[in-house]
Amino acid sequence: MLKECLDQVRKKAPVVHNITNYVTVNDVANVILACGGSPIMSDEPEDVADITSICGGLNINLGTLHKTSIEGMLKAGHRSNELGHPVLLDPVGAGASRFRTETALKLIKEIKFSVIRGNVSEIKTLAYGSGSTKGVDADLTEAVNERNLQQSISFIKGFAKKKEAIVIITGAIDLVTDGEKCYVIRNGRSEMGRITGTGCQLSGITTAFLAANPKRKLEAAVAAVCMMGVAGEIAWTRMQEGDGNATYRNRIIDAIYNMTGEKLEKGAKYELY
Amino acid sequence: MLKECLDQVRKKAPVVHNITNYVTVNDVANVILACGGSPIMSDEPEDVADITSICGGLNINLGTLHKTSIEGMLKAGHRSNELGHPVLLDPVGAGASRFRTETALKLIKEIKFSVIRGNVSEIKTLAYGSGSTKGVDADLTEAVNERNLQQSISFIKGFAKKKEAIVIITGAIDLVTDGEKCYVIRNGRSEMGRITGTGCQLSGITTAFLAANPKRKLEAAVAAVCMMGVAGEIAWTRMQEGDGNATYRNRIIDAIYNMTGEKLEKGAKYELY
Amino acid sequence: MLKECLDQVRKKAPVVHNITNYVTVNDVANVILACGGSPIMSDEPEDVADITSICGGLNINLGTLHKTSIEGMLKAGHRSNELGHPVLLDPVGAGASRFRTETALKLIKEIKFSVIRGNVSEIKTLAYGSGSTKGVDADLTEAVNERNLQQSISFIKGFAKKKEAIVIITGAIDLVTDGEKCYVIRNGRSEMGRITGTGCQLSGITTAFLAANPKRKLEAAVAAVCMMGVAGEIAWTRMQEGDGNATYRNRIIDAIYNMTGEKLEKGAKYELY
Repeated sequence: MLKECLDQVRKKAPVVHNITNYVTVNDVANVILACGGSPIMSDEPEDVADITSICGGLNINLGTLHKTSIEGMLKAGHRSNELGHPVLLDPVGAGASRFRTETALKLIKEIKFSVIRGNVSEIKTLAYGSGSTKGVDADLTEAVNERNLQQSISFIKGFAKKKEAIVIITGAIDLVTDGEKCYVIRNGRSEMGRITGTGCQLSGITTAFLAANPKRKLEAAVAAVCMMGVAGEIAWTRMQEGDGNATYRNRIIDAIYNMTGEKLEKGAKYELY
Repeated sequence: MLKECLDQVRKKAPVVHNITNYVTVNDVANVILACGGSPIMSDEPEDVADITSICGGLNINLGTLHKTSIEGMLKAGHRSNELGHPVLLDPVGAGASRFRTETALKLIKEIKFSVIRGNVSEIKTLAYGSGSTKGVDADLTEAVNERNLQQSISFIKGFAKKKEAIVIITGAIDLVTDGEKCYVIRNGRSEMGRITGTGCQLSGITTAFLAANPKRKLEAAVAAVCMMGVAGEIAWTRMQEGDGNATYRNRIIDAIYNMTGEKLEKGAKYELY
Repeated sequence: MLKECLDQVRKKAPVVHNITNYVTVNDVANVILACGGSPIMSDEPEDVADITSICGGLNINLGTLHKTSIEGMLKAGHRSNELGHPVLLDPVGAGASRFRTETALKLIKEIKFSVIRGNVSEIKTLAYGSGSTKGVDADLTEAVNERNLQQSISFIKGFAKKKEAIVIITGAIDLVTDGEKCYVIRNGRSEMGRITGTGCQLSGITTAFLAANPKRKLEAAVAAVCMMGVAGEIAWTRMQEGDGNATYRNRIIDAIYNMTGEKLEKGAKYELY
């Protein structure tokens, strides 16, 4: 299943339109190229409809959100919806400020998202309309763990059903659901949290995977999440004494560049609930 | 010829004003430093005239173009023209959206560019006023190749003559012309296309080369294009098992940092038509 | 002293709000993570007050300054002042343009800064109200050196006393003063100037150090400056043939990731004047 999804990305080379933050945008571009897609960035309201029309998917990320970009997000989202493209929302910092929370809620109301991907604080903020996000990292007290797993699955399934979207919560344990099935993924390493933008990168490649696999979106999202985690594990094996988060960042993108369907299938650790 | 051009960059350390996209801007800054120049970035209309006045050249790049930046591009361009600085246009995504195409055409009308550098789709869009650009990568069906080489040279010479500028088309084969002479360059590797921003980087260093070599602009542009390609080749020889596009990106900038006139002369593969 | 300051950063993991330029922002985020803090970036006026409220410190950097960001800087600065958070100013390019100089002076007038950090040209511009900055790099003729050291110390102490702030001038020799004591630091390497953003990175980690060490701000600033320099020295020992500024950039962040209190104490070269 995962192999086929990756093969389709490599074969179709989907062009992904990204409206994303200026912190991690370069890594998002390089990781989309690494996985076999082609990135294009544009947030200017006058530019986005044309750009999204020549793409296969749209990735909207709220990091470093500007008021002027919201119009671009809405225009691109509406056009992508008309064209039937997959649209992903990465609500970076929802819960951390009223502006980001309200913008995320507004976008969800006006645009049909195929995928909503965030950490547990961000997703809970969107589900409950408020939050206790500690910056852009998840509030650790509510992270998904073995103890609250069933409860977390039940929560995320309910939210996905309500929004009619695939919802992804990433953390030490990742959850991916369409409201019916829920995949529990245990790949990745905690050191990935010491690199800025691994979440943003995952949102970029998830959009590429959905664009290339329109008939199996849930499986495509699972493949993208597993690939990011497996890449984090492979990359770690290449770390040498003295290496730190800057080198780890490069090695993860390199591992995605060199990922094969076989490595992905072999490394992926997921269960279906 | 190439050696002398590089030596001048190292000797004069030209300050390059960049109005460029937020995707690849960090790499553009580091590659300008690597080749011996000094980068400064500013796109705010109130800031650009002062900034460009203390620089030796101006690099205008349309990636992630914003409406508000256009005023900055025009002000900086006019001021640079007054001061006789070389001004380069990198029309990223011209042909991919009406907004980018029209902005590129407007800039060419109002500013005197020393160099226009893009992929074949972008340059054809500027020449014919419309295009079929596939995202920010060139439409492969019209790439410069051995079969259409003479026709491509004839096209680019005509466009350069009309615009009274040096025009550079980059791809598997690079063309550099001032309308009279056309250099055909066969350096570089296809894997460079899997890194975001190698084109943006080339635009940055080309501006530095022109700023440092005002009396031989065409040769300076050829030297910059050859250097990017030779760096891509040298960098590839340093790639190890497991390395991918993130590491390749770093190695290319490293190769430019360590480039010598001798390595450049030895590695450059160009012909004059 | 230095060890204790670093230990506090690692223990408290301060969240740092950065309003910074789009050139070096990714490196600033990764270096804050490397030293043990947690970065968040936001410059939108509607967003900054909420964001800074959940942080422990604020880092304001004038690189790629936009008119619209100034309102965000003022709002965030006022809120941080109300909350008693440390606020740092990095006046990138003050002296290089009237817009940047005037904005820096306006910010200093309206916001209480805990730290002002720049190169000698930028700091002299702020002290005298005008300057002769050559781009974003310091005008070399006025760099701090052994010959003008006493005079430089006297100048910086006077400026710090007047502004009631810690002032840091970085260069081949770094000066850190609160107006009473002045630390003279001789760490780092000249090759760090061939990487874009080592100054921006230092401003980010200095803010993290102050946020984690509210009762010894001067020592915290000294620890941050020493750490950047020691990291530059350690990173250089890991450079291999063919490596250049791109790899050096990664190795410096890696060295900060792997820095220990012991390495920092052992490597730091500072004197108190």
